[in-house]
Amino acid sequence: MNSPNNRIRIFDTSLRDGEQSPGFTMSGAQKIAFAHALAELGVDVIEAGFPNSSPADYSAVQTIARDVRGASIAALARCHEGDIEACARALERAESPRIHVFISSSPLHRQYKLNMSREQVIEHAIMGVTLARKHVDDVEFSAEDAFRTERDFLVELFNAAVATGATTLNVPDTVGYATPDEIRELFRYLRANVQGADGVVFSAHCHNDLGLAVANSLAAIEGGARQVECTINGIGERAGNAALEELVMALKVRQGWYGVDTGITTPKLLDTSRLLSRITGIQVQRNKAIVGLNAFAHESGIHQHGMLKNRDTYEIMHPQDVGWPASQLVLGRHSGRAAVADRLRALGHVLDDAQLDLVIAQAKALTHTQHVVSDADLLRLVAGDHGDTGWRIASMSLIDEGQHTRAHVELSDPDGHRVKQDASGDGPIAALFAALAKAAGVDFELESYEVHSMGIGRDARGEANLSARIGGETFSGQGTSRDVLEASAIAWLEVANRLLRSYAMQRVPAFA
Amino acid sequence: MNSPNNRIRIFDTSLRDGEQSPGFTMSGAQKIAFAHALAELGVDVIEAGFPNSSPADYSAVQTIARDVRGASIAALARCHEGDIEACARALERAESPRIHVFISSSPLHRQYKLNMSREQVIEHAIMGVTLARKHVDDVEFSAEDAFRTERDFLVELFNAAVATGATTLNVPDTVGYATPDEIRELFRYLRANVQGADGVVFSAHCHNDLGLAVANSLAAIEGGARQVECTINGIGERAGNAALEELVMALKVRQGWYGVDTGITTPKLLDTSRLLSRITGIQVQRNKAIVGLNAFAHESGIHQHGMLKNRDTYEIMHPQDVGWPASQLVLGRHSGRAAVADRLRALGHVLDDAQLDLVIAQAKALTHTQHVVSDADLLRLVAGDHGDTGWRIASMSLIDEGQHTRAHVELSDPDGHRVKQDASGDGPIAALFAALAKAAGVDFELESYEVHSMGIGRDARGEANLSARIGGETFSGQGTSRDVLEASAIAWLEVANRLLRSYAMQRVPAFA
Repeated sequence: MNSPNNRIRIFDTSLRDGEQSPGFTMSGAQKIAFAHALAELGVDVIEAGFPNSSPADYSAVQTIARDVRGASIAALARCHEGDIEACARALERAESPRIHVFISSSPLHRQYKLNMSREQVIEHAIMGVTLARKHVDDVEFSAEDAFRTERDFLVELFNAAVATGATTLNVPDTVGYATPDEIRELFRYLRANVQGADGVVFSAHCHNDLGLAVANSLAAIEGGARQVECTINGIGERAGNAALEELVMALKVRQGWYGVDTGITTPKLLDTSRLLSRITGIQVQRNKAIVGLNAFAHESGIHQHGMLKNRDTYEIMHPQDVGWPASQLVLGRHSGRAAVADRLRALGHVLDDAQLDLVIAQAKALTHTQHVVSDADLLRLVAGDHGDTGWRIASMSLIDEGQHTRAHVELSDPDGHRVKQDASGDGPIAALFAALAKAAGVDFELESYEVHSMGIGRDARGEANLSARIGGETFSGQGTSRDVLEASAIAWLEVANRLLRSYAMQRVPAFA
Repeated sequence: MNSPNNRIRIFDTSLRDGEQSPGFTMSGAQKIAFAHALAELGVDVIEAGFPNSSPADYSAVQTIARDVRGASIAALARCHEGDIEACARALERAESPRIHVFISSSPLHRQYKLNMSREQVIEHAIMGVTLARKHVDDVEFSAEDAFRTERDFLVELFNAAVATGATTLNVPDTVGYATPDEIRELFRYLRANVQGADGVVFSAHCHNDLGLAVANSLAAIEGGARQVECTINGIGERAGNAALEELVMALKVRQGWYGVDTGITTPKLLDTSRLLSRITGIQVQRNKAIVGLNAFAHESGIHQHGMLKNRDTYEIMHPQDVGWPASQLVLGRHSGRAAVADRLRALGHVLDDAQLDLVIAQAKALTHTQHVVSDADLLRLVAGDHGDTGWRIASMSLIDEGQHTRAHVELSDPDGHRVKQDASGDGPIAALFAALAKAAGVDFELESYEVHSMGIGRDARGEANLSARIGGETFSGQGTSRDVLEASAIAWLEVANRLLRSYAMQRVPAFA
């Protein structure tokens, strides 16, 4: 086991700093669901909210405190009696309650936000920590904008907080201004100068305004911090907080460098990230580290060639470590010969050089009209089937019927066959897919479905991505159109046509 | 003026490392448009592509080399004759051509990717640099996976490259494994040990797999790097490269710490980021630093209170510095009294305490049903208008008419009035908005429109956000529904209803 000195406490503030940022508001039920997920992920402290800011916040903190087990539940309070009493009441039924009191400490904040002298700030801090300690044993004290605070005053303020019973001292870089070296040095200074530093936990709270939140949190740990405050997907005020998933994986992948551990069950990272995206309706970008769609995807031929021989050539962690099924080799315009040959071998086809050249040339041609080449595309090319088969959309329309939507579709194939069908469903997408299934004569469960659109009319660009898992294999479809519904239909038909071709080609082992 | 030693060269590889990642493929025309934008932004080097990887790449590099002025144009080549000859031909008409040759140097890559000895790698590097120098004076040499390469061998390899004529030595952390301290130390070591180090530019190329690409690039600069390779929005293989906008703003905001400058025109950062999103159809996340929608938005009451008194309390840079019009104070559930009072004052209303309490209570109630409270909402509350007015959707349907889509809408108002209209347009969104405009009797140009959806049927969640600029003021609308079209219609009607109310309330100064 690790000595306690090497155990980093992960303090998640997705439900407080994250939730208070524009667009990330959550309902009470959503907060409770997410708090359960955080406890399962293994975070040490869940900051559930700021109870005195609204009745909704109060009620969410209260329910989380009552129902969620396995993590400390923290609630935020200014150094005001009303805020602290609200925390105490909301946390009454928590297994391990923590009251987190804060006050601004920097000259700028003292003057413009608080209009208080140094002495008044210290008096308020003493009042806040003392009152919080009457209710709970676990009290965190934050000096807001600590990074821009005079060193001597910060030590004085923390001395007062420790003497009054604070057990965690949090040092926020509230405006995201620090560099890693400055943060490391500040933590060293505080640990050397605060009275009773050995008996308390120092905590970092870094913002990402300059893209440095994770690096600063790691530097804080090097400087002696043993708690880091972070959020799933790095959500939070402005550019957000340090991303929990990046911080935790940096500590794990570079354990030899940092020499510390966390209690996070890393294979749950991806699911937790996706739960947050579903709840807030806001996704991470495709190239987001750890949890973005591309984080473990390799398209370039150069990379694929190395990956096929030894995964370590381009991967420093296993995708499974963070919850991904496996890293995807996506064949695209930049894919090389070795990648195509390897993928075909995996699909049961060993081709001679001339055959391989032909398939590669055809696959490259395909990338002019579609972004990636899937397994089904490759199998079709091997089978000598050069596209232009399968159903296409001749027309589609949607009618709102109040509770339901009805979709009418007409499909055509290259031989001139046409088929019309209609179906109703919850919303236009469900109706559309149901009608397409009836018309194409094939149906499947979708594993994922996403659509994005920007702009309208001639400038619009809609993109739909969906995937279905059939017989142990993932089929992906993508459609692009000015119209998101048409893009969705194209993507759906792409999967359907591949399935239909594979049924017709029973000899292909991958579909057996 | 700065001495040359303090000038950091910004090498943008959005069109090469970025474009080769799954989902970010661009057409030739898109690449050319983006290269022009990069030149206007003031990047020093544009890596335009890998000419020998495909005819499309070749042709894009050739056109960019011919048309784009004001930046060096680089093209990538393995240490293969064919690759280098293709670069030379594609760059023939460039103002300042650069050939960028690379070869893997780490033991893992030598064994599994190249199957070469150290000596063979050096021979290839010498051949590559020598051949490239026959064509151009400006040759960059990259040791792929340099960070995981034995120090002695890396020095030997760079010595050979310098002796043969390389002018820039690039040190990639290809797999995104390094920590800032290691990178800084590696650059110091190389600058001290490579023969002729003073006559060449050292370059960093960092990947973001652990969220450290920006911090590592900054550490490289501290270690003596004078070129950094980066991409707009941080796109690139897997978790991407260092984000240009974050790196440049960190250097600018912390100029006193880093002591270096770039040639970037920072007020063009936002437009360049948005151009890339439009081209690729892939947006940055809302909490992305510098260019995300929330980067300069403040919702929490605590933050707003300080911001109103002095922007510096929560902002380390001015939004205008990176191209934003101004930072937005968004009123939401977490907004405080001071923010609401200040916003109302800005809109021309000074309320007494009791009036203010009432408006705040009503505004908080509104946040249960909508994410943010806009100026128009506030004005409506001040005017004693408690919602439930304006048009709502009674029914809507869409019919695909081949080239166009026709939308039928029926609107109702709380007094029971109903109105039906239909209109056609390019795609369902354009048709829908045209029909809504006819039915509501009000129309406006949209400034922005975005829609997102995840999941289908009962689990679907669609969100539409749009804004219109009318009479110098921005009106935003948001709609949420299982159905993206309905969400769009709700968002559009939100703006329309506010406009209609403001026409009816001519006395309100903000709309005068």
